[in-house]
Amino acid sequence: MMTVEKLSKMISVALGNEKADLVIKNAKIVNVMSGSFLDADIAIVDDYIVGVGEYSGKEEFDAKGSYATSGLIDAHVHIESSLCTPETFGEYVIAKGTTLAITDPHEIGNVCGVDGIDYMIESAKQTPLKCMVMLPSCVPALDFEESGCVLDSKECAKLVNNDEIFGLAEMMNAPGLFKLDRDVLEKLVLFINANKTIDGHGVLLSDKKLNAYLSARITTDHECRTPEDAKQKLDLGMYVLFRHSTASFYLPELLKAVNPYNYRRCCMCTDDKHLDHIEHRGHVSENLKIAVENGIDPFIAVAMATINPAECYGLKDMGLVAPGYKADIVLWDDLKDFNANTVFIDGNMVAKDGLSFKKSENKVNKDKVINTMNIKPITLDDLQIKINGNKANVMRRVVQTLTEKVEREVAVDENGYFKFEGSPNLKKVAVIERHKATGHIGLGLIENFDMSNGAIATTIAHDSHNLIVIGDNDEDMILAIKELERVGGGITVVKQGKVLETLELNIAGLISDDKPENIISTMHKLLDVAYNELKADKSINPFMTLSSLSLAVIPKIRVTTKGLYDVVDNSFLEVSL
Amino acid sequence: MMTVEKLSKMISVALGNEKADLVIKNAKIVNVMSGSFLDADIAIVDDYIVGVGEYSGKEEFDAKGSYATSGLIDAHVHIESSLCTPETFGEYVIAKGTTLAITDPHEIGNVCGVDGIDYMIESAKQTPLKCMVMLPSCVPALDFEESGCVLDSKECAKLVNNDEIFGLAEMMNAPGLFKLDRDVLEKLVLFINANKTIDGHGVLLSDKKLNAYLSARITTDHECRTPEDAKQKLDLGMYVLFRHSTASFYLPELLKAVNPYNYRRCCMCTDDKHLDHIEHRGHVSENLKIAVENGIDPFIAVAMATINPAECYGLKDMGLVAPGYKADIVLWDDLKDFNANTVFIDGNMVAKDGLSFKKSENKVNKDKVINTMNIKPITLDDLQIKINGNKANVMRRVVQTLTEKVEREVAVDENGYFKFEGSPNLKKVAVIERHKATGHIGLGLIENFDMSNGAIATTIAHDSHNLIVIGDNDEDMILAIKELERVGGGITVVKQGKVLETLELNIAGLISDDKPENIISTMHKLLDVAYNELKADKSINPFMTLSSLSLAVIPKIRVTTKGLYDVVDNSFLEVSL
Repeated sequence: MMTVEKLSKMISVALGNEKADLVIKNAKIVNVMSGSFLDADIAIVDDYIVGVGEYSGKEEFDAKGSYATSGLIDAHVHIESSLCTPETFGEYVIAKGTTLAITDPHEIGNVCGVDGIDYMIESAKQTPLKCMVMLPSCVPALDFEESGCVLDSKECAKLVNNDEIFGLAEMMNAPGLFKLDRDVLEKLVLFINANKTIDGHGVLLSDKKLNAYLSARITTDHECRTPEDAKQKLDLGMYVLFRHSTASFYLPELLKAVNPYNYRRCCMCTDDKHLDHIEHRGHVSENLKIAVENGIDPFIAVAMATINPAECYGLKDMGLVAPGYKADIVLWDDLKDFNANTVFIDGNMVAKDGLSFKKSENKVNKDKVINTMNIKPITLDDLQIKINGNKANVMRRVVQTLTEKVEREVAVDENGYFKFEGSPNLKKVAVIERHKATGHIGLGLIENFDMSNGAIATTIAHDSHNLIVIGDNDEDMILAIKELERVGGGITVVKQGKVLETLELNIAGLISDDKPENIISTMHKLLDVAYNELKADKSINPFMTLSSLSLAVIPKIRVTTKGLYDVVDNSFLEVSL
Repeated sequence: MMTVEKLSKMISVALGNEKADLVIKNAKIVNVMSGSFLDADIAIVDDYIVGVGEYSGKEEFDAKGSYATSGLIDAHVHIESSLCTPETFGEYVIAKGTTLAITDPHEIGNVCGVDGIDYMIESAKQTPLKCMVMLPSCVPALDFEESGCVLDSKECAKLVNNDEIFGLAEMMNAPGLFKLDRDVLEKLVLFINANKTIDGHGVLLSDKKLNAYLSARITTDHECRTPEDAKQKLDLGMYVLFRHSTASFYLPELLKAVNPYNYRRCCMCTDDKHLDHIEHRGHVSENLKIAVENGIDPFIAVAMATINPAECYGLKDMGLVAPGYKADIVLWDDLKDFNANTVFIDGNMVAKDGLSFKKSENKVNKDKVINTMNIKPITLDDLQIKINGNKANVMRRVVQTLTEKVEREVAVDENGYFKFEGSPNLKKVAVIERHKATGHIGLGLIENFDMSNGAIATTIAHDSHNLIVIGDNDEDMILAIKELERVGGGITVVKQGKVLETLELNIAGLISDDKPENIISTMHKLLDVAYNELKADKSINPFMTLSSLSLAVIPKIRVTTKGLYDVVDNSFLEVSL
């Protein structure tokens, strides 16, 4: 809320008639509107920048020649993927120069519904990081999915005009949209009429399907994987969010789409990044580093993480270091490595030298988001795959999170069931319904996912977050399932009848409110045992990749609680040919 | 209002499952997001574009290879300056390819207050032209001005949340803002908190004053006259509106400010254009013609009149020829002369070959906006200027609407009053209060405004719209005043005791609801007699220039009902030295 008193002070300070609350001295402003650097003081009153020029302040901070940009904006992120609470997420990403995140609590929404979203909103209020919360559009993601909760259009209607709901999050249910599913259309109409932004998830869309998707006023896409894909979307006015996540890292290739005409609609996002990835390699700052390394003009790179997303989401007073804009400012050592040395949010210094001042306490009430494991007792028999003959439909991991369907000869035991011995390179994947103890279990075989002598399981299994387990023997798979049931959800690695390491994710089976250093060290141990004990493929993050194998909105083939699913044809298929 | 039924149809048509309402065939789309042309059909459902590609429609229109752009947006215009009603204005500008105008009823507001604004809104509803109405911020423009009405912050508070009020119009009262005038700040705070756009009027602002102005969240400026001025404002994130009006024509010079980084915040506007100017030389289309002539990339020029102003004013579904955007489309013969051959608004063809289909009828009730002349009887004595000695402060017209103060020796009669004889090149200017019969008259002398043997008078006298008259003899000046009093306001040219021509402006003394062809032909006759009978300077429009001589927010010196005013020093001064 602006007041006459506040505005009076802002104007007085801007005119030089009064001292600023804070002046950042000796900064080199990265002026994305001119494509040049500006050596000037930055005068701040309360939460706003009021002057760029020569100023003096009650408090003065010497930037010592650091580069100053507006705070970085993550245009699309699931905080749950960091494995920690919004409060802890804020602590870590602020230190990397991110000051605003457009968040989609899609994961916890699929487990806990509105209670989960409420929890995320409350936790986000405990961090100086600005979080804009989009309402998950697809809970469940597709009609047949077995999520913990359902957010239908009636539920959305209650929330659309809520000030804490910033827009409608990624519309994954493109098949439903094309089939004119009434509930999908009702949700879109609600947000169109409220004039709130609708985010997209435009995988494999082109030509007429893309036209249809855009006609529904879906304005962003973060699922482009090729420059051609990004270009066709930018040509039609779509905002393309250039993603670099823990599981998807085609950003260098994608950046080839950027040109002087379309860059205004190019933004940066992380989508899904583990906390240890953020800690060691950066957050949106990593996107900038990669962009500049790959030849993008630093002014354009910075615009992609500041003014462009601000415009995309209608945040009129954000994204520039200029008077009238929010005093969300980051000072950088250079424009190559993008190490944030000092971070201000709303005119307050919140981080310095890679450390946030406010440590997360995670005292937000979590009663409604814990104890979410509800599995029907499971036996070895439940994991058996019947094969008629000796051929099977197999899910083959192609690159990063993409898969394809292949046919393979497999070994079969005397009762006609798949056996590991004699089926080299094939692992078994099971998705176990965990919200309502239905006993539904979907089974599949996967190729090109190296690991041996054990099992890996996680209750992070997009998008319904049932329990997904991969293994090269049934006994270890059962042990991994029981371990996660015991701890209330999480990630575990099992080898030859022994649990090697478990990360407990007490909140919704998705995130932990433990100390962040514990989350990071346990994650390191998990990666260590996965890579070194189970010999998992070191070119991928086995946990994030496993979590994506049930993601039925990404091509081309996935496993769900109801079995193998062909994403392109929108149909189920048997493992046995 | 979007509905599920409408959205269903849009998606079905986009997918090619159903015929479009209208398909524009064989268009060459000017794709401002890619900087290239796209040969494609444009499919329309109701008021939206739903597809760009290959489509068939119930109705099909052959564009015959015309260039297609989104409809042009005039980012800032006073419709009153066209001398006609919004309805008639719409008829004419639509035919030139303008489909949306951000309007500021500042002129009629200064005469008739809210009644005047209401009249403009109602009249605008009678034309297919989309009009967004900004609330005049400065009625009167400056504290001392004698306008017909006052719109103070209390009045603004009643209107700020009205859906028909789009934002706050040009904040001219920069002196008031810098002095922290409470009423000015209250108005700003109202619109900041309503998250509505605030337009600027940033004449002569730079450095700390510009910082202060921007701190008040004023986001646009249409008063830049040099590329340096435009650049400094663009550097600070301000949207610069590139004006080309009947009285201001420095656009070619100003365009030098445009570069690949800042062009996204460059928009086109007309501000003030007479109807005959529009008819003969175009509307926003003229800005585009000038831009391309002066070397601006046509894609950038088009962006400046389409997507850029749409973004500036938060019009999310306007400004591109792309699915999900409004079907406001213009077909052009070429991208040089910018002759609109066909214009669509909301999917309906509204003009073809330079003619609008809907002719204005001007049946909107005008009872509250006519009979606005209220002058205290005036005599020759009222026009006499006392000179002590033989030196006077003189207003010198410099270029276009700009003036400067100079000192001149003048001839004085036996009673100590200025006399024309012996004062070559000097004309007398009088501003007569006409709203409340106060009898207030301001007098001045002007140099470099050629005319002889008569007088010119108008009730369009920015910003309070009192009566302004210029002459080289007092008798003709009195006759001109009485003529305008007789007809209820307008523009008149008098020569040697005879009225040569009068344009009656029955509405507020500013606009006419007569047939547009009559307005144009009378304006032609007025120009003819001014240029040929009074030998007025043919390099200027004498009426618009005269109207600006009382405009106390434009440097450097003006005449008001209270006398000569120094705009730079914000002070009054005597004519006599």
